Amino acid sequence: MTELRKDPVLGRWVIIATERSRRPSDFTQEERRPLGGFCPLCEGNEDRTPPEVLAFRDNSNPPNSRGWSLRVVPNKFPALRIEGDLDREGDGVYDRMNGVGAHEVVIETPLHHESLATLPLKGVENVLRAYRERVIDLRRDSRFQFVIVFKNHGVAAGASLEHPHSQLIALPIVPKRVAEEIEGARDYFQYKDRCVFCDVIRQELQQRKRVISENETFVSIAPFASSFPFETWILPKSHNPNFALGYVDPFRGPFPYEGAAQILQDVLRRLDLVLKDPPYNLIIHNSPFPSRDKDCYHWHIEITPKLTKMAGFEWGTAFFINPTPPEEAAEYMREAR
Amino acid sequence: MTELRKDPVLGRWVIIATERSRRPSDFTQEERRPLGGFCPLCEGNEDRTPPEVLAFRDNSNPPNSRGWSLRVVPNKFPALRIEGDLDREGDGVYDRMNGVGAHEVVIETPLHHESLATLPLKGVENVLRAYRERVIDLRRDSRFQFVIVFKNHGVAAGASLEHPHSQLIALPIVPKRVAEEIEGARDYFQYKDRCVFCDVIRQELQQRKRVISENETFVSIAPFASSFPFETWILPKSHNPNFALGYVDPFRGPFPYEGAAQILQDVLRRLDLVLKDPPYNLIIHNSPFPSRDKDCYHWHIEITPKLTKMAGFEWGTAFFINPTPPEEAAEYMREAR
Repeated sequence: MTELRKDPVLGRWVIIATERSRRPSDFTQEERRPLGGFCPLCEGNEDRTPPEVLAFRDNSNPPNSRGWSLRVVPNKFPALRIEGDLDREGDGVYDRMNGVGAHEVVIETPLHHESLATLPLKGVENVLRAYRERVIDLRRDSRFQFVIVFKNHGVAAGASLEHPHSQLIALPIVPKRVAEEIEGARDYFQYKDRCVFCDVIRQELQQRKRVISENETFVSIAPFASSFPFETWILPKSHNPNFALGYVDPFRGPFPYEGAAQILQDVLRRLDLVLKDPPYNLIIHNSPFPSRDKDCYHWHIEITPKLTKMAGFEWGTAFFINPTPPEEAAEYMREAR
Repeated sequence: MTELRKDPVLGRWVIIATERSRRPSDFTQEERRPLGGFCPLCEGNEDRTPPEVLAFRDNSNPPNSRGWSLRVVPNKFPALRIEGDLDREGDGVYDRMNGVGAHEVVIETPLHHESLATLPLKGVENVLRAYRERVIDLRRDSRFQFVIVFKNHGVAAGASLEHPHSQLIALPIVPKRVAEEIEGARDYFQYKDRCVFCDVIRQELQQRKRVISENETFVSIAPFASSFPFETWILPKSHNPNFALGYVDPFRGPFPYEGAAQILQDVLRRLDLVLKDPPYNLIIHNSPFPSRDKDCYHWHIEITPKLTKMAGFEWGTAFFINPTPPEEAAEYMREAR
């Protein structure tokens, strides 16, 4: 059974995946995945994934058959399982919990060789729409406190399948990294009565040194304290704590799918041009469900190309050495066309 | 000029290494280092490194010449520079500081193809002795608040040179990750009036499920909440907050070099046997200099083999998925001989 364990010093939870335990020989054998082999995410192979929980189809085909433009299915090898109640227990100084959660895969397109940079804009909009629908649905499950939406593009970024896909993981706790970000935003708000992200956006749009691109609803920047070369953030210009919630508010209007899809595709195309299709991680930074402190936070997307290796110094200190100043990265990105 | 920048949300500092700026083409060209080429750390090439700040020699040769068993030299391409005063300034919502610090390389042996696992025990003792002498010396510089000692072994772990070496970086601030660990230990101490690491050691030695090996002065374990497969900690059995300090205390006795060297080599040999010379990061976890909360902490060594890739989920949550339960890892490590 998968188990969550808490580090007694750092207070950080870890998933011990006892179910898909890996032995030493699994690591020492060269990890080479055959490219071009069978792909379970391609159209026509719908029976090779668990049954879909969401799909966009233009025709009247039944679920789990051909004719879709996007599918969401449970992960066949989930990090956390949907079944069971939350069970928490101690063992001396240690704390554990069983691994309850949800782990879903968003198959972004039926076409194996497309990407978010090459799809028609409507296709990127659909991906964002699927993220949002699934987050709203998972939120109904009271066992979950947070859903993370992320994408690993390329083997170096941790992708195990080549077919364009992203993932959602619903968690029974708010992860430490997320809590820290919420707390940072809350501390700033308490001191200044303003959102730190709104302040960052205002300053970036004035200074123009780190802006990559913008449209009516979003701006993309190379952040001031970039941890990685060519790290890029996409921020909604209007304050909104949660990616999935809050857009019913008449003052905030409907979710700006078109602006979000346009700038996301624009940024990924620029990255492809400047860095020749680099591996990257894309993460939606969002507020947790129990809406404490929700007004302080400002959802956004962070994209980090995987160009450097994390070594001992970074592990030991969480202090990153970035060899490309964000001002220079922004300039390369702005000029890419 | 290298610059430290603070993330306005997370409060985490980043080193923007403007001096050795890397352009997009530096990342897109395949990174292949010629193995077996010229090595600046080998004996006879003493003039190809900056002048040594420490060396162990058995003969009467002058500094920066042959005949050494260990040398410490400043890093030729330092992440931080030793010159200058600390200068802190704001820019709207942002904070920056100039990159003052020290970055040194411990050349562990004159022999290119040795390692900490194959050196004579006395050689490993010398490496620990050099770490300690340098930390004590750097501590005299009042600009520094923390020195991290670490080793990247293998290209996948971030090593850029093959010759056995470790590094020290002295920092003008206490890094966030270090502060969190100190705070976690302090919170536990305040609640229980006991050291959390002492409690962990006691429980591990009783349960024996995660113990790898022990001697009179040290124990090695696979930690309960291991973030990575085969993560290994080496803990001194007697409470001591700082690796370099506190051993003058008559109750604590002299620094147990022999026990530390013996168990470090034992652990590295077991890792080599089980995982066939894996890439790894080794980090000395230590308390900062200004001795706040110092009594709560317990210095130790953490070794993390680089067997899995960090992907979007881990970046976004600091929530690690470990496919090898530490109880199984400990069993493989115990049985290795």
